[in-house]
Amino acid sequence: MPRWEPNAAERLHDAALGLFTAQGYDQTTVAQIAAHAGLTERTFFNHFSSKREVLFGRTSEIQKRVLVREVRACPAGLRPIEMVVRALRATADEVLEDFRVPAAPRRTIIDATPELQEREEAKRAALTAATAEALRERGLDGETALLAAGAGLLIQQAAEQRWIQPGERRPLRDLITEALTSLRLVTEPE
Amino acid sequence: MPRWEPNAAERLHDAALGLFTAQGYDQTTVAQIAAHAGLTERTFFNHFSSKREVLFGRTSEIQKRVLVREVRACPAGLRPIEMVVRALRATADEVLEDFRVPAAPRRTIIDATPELQEREEAKRAALTAATAEALRERGLDGETALLAAGAGLLIQQAAEQRWIQPGERRPLRDLITEALTSLRLVTEPE
Repeated sequence: MPRWEPNAAERLHDAALGLFTAQGYDQTTVAQIAAHAGLTERTFFNHFSSKREVLFGRTSEIQKRVLVREVRACPAGLRPIEMVVRALRATADEVLEDFRVPAAPRRTIIDATPELQEREEAKRAALTAATAEALRERGLDGETALLAAGAGLLIQQAAEQRWIQPGERRPLRDLITEALTSLRLVTEPE
Repeated sequence: MPRWEPNAAERLHDAALGLFTAQGYDQTTVAQIAAHAGLTERTFFNHFSSKREVLFGRTSEIQKRVLVREVRACPAGLRPIEMVVRALRATADEVLEDFRVPAAPRRTIIDATPELQEREEAKRAALTAATAEALRERGLDGETALLAAGAGLLIQQAAEQRWIQPGERRPLRDLITEALTSLRLVTEPE
């Protein structure tokens, strides 16, 4: 990446989010995003392969790295879901909490754009697969790894929904813990 | 759909699966699939919009209809996850059990083909969204509906993994019940 454009990815992300909100996703071009960020199209494509990547690009790669690192670093003896929740809380602190302000408008754009919803599903599936793989490396069987990773990403999704509610001030890490409790309530026997 | 080609969708599905297995997904063309099914390319495109739909097309639409119908038909007073599991078991009986024989080779092809994995994720997300919507219509709040539907589709995924194991003979409906128990074990507190 070009060192001479500081924070280019963030500037492009913010410019894209502003334009998508103001005029719609379909009506916004990469040229407009680059211009609003004070950058060239070429710089855009140094950072993102296409318009549909600009709201995801860097974050989900970093999330994946932190998730895998944290699952590997868990102390022995934790239950599977505790390993995953611990890793998700680290990801919230290290990666996501900084994106709280744009998280609500970003959610609005994604929910209104099937192309971005599909992209988000694929990213979530990739995070689930990477987490499950890290759990298998820790000795869990395939089914337990799938269920713990899948439950974790579901918890993450519910926590992010709360996190972007107007008036919600608690950090994402706390909402992840709450969402685990909610999942247990929803799935428990009578 | 043309009435004069009985079981065209099934014949195309089976021809595609055979060709994908024998020579690979990328190496197989729609023309070859149609020829192996004894049908024309035009008939193929009457049933499926592209090669990547042929392993999914009809089943996931029918699955969605049955899931939504069953959630709507649940007796009052069931717990959220019980509503979803009941609907999944009905879907297993009415739709999926007939596809047991091709399920294992189909899984092998999808796991080896990123394009099909992405398609499968999108289909699963659509089933989750439809189930959550049906649960909200039954009066559940958005978070409970998301968690119950998401947990349900995760249970479905784990159950299908067991269902295709060599030597496994139990019907999918029973494996769904087992997978709910496994999910509870994986997520329960110490």
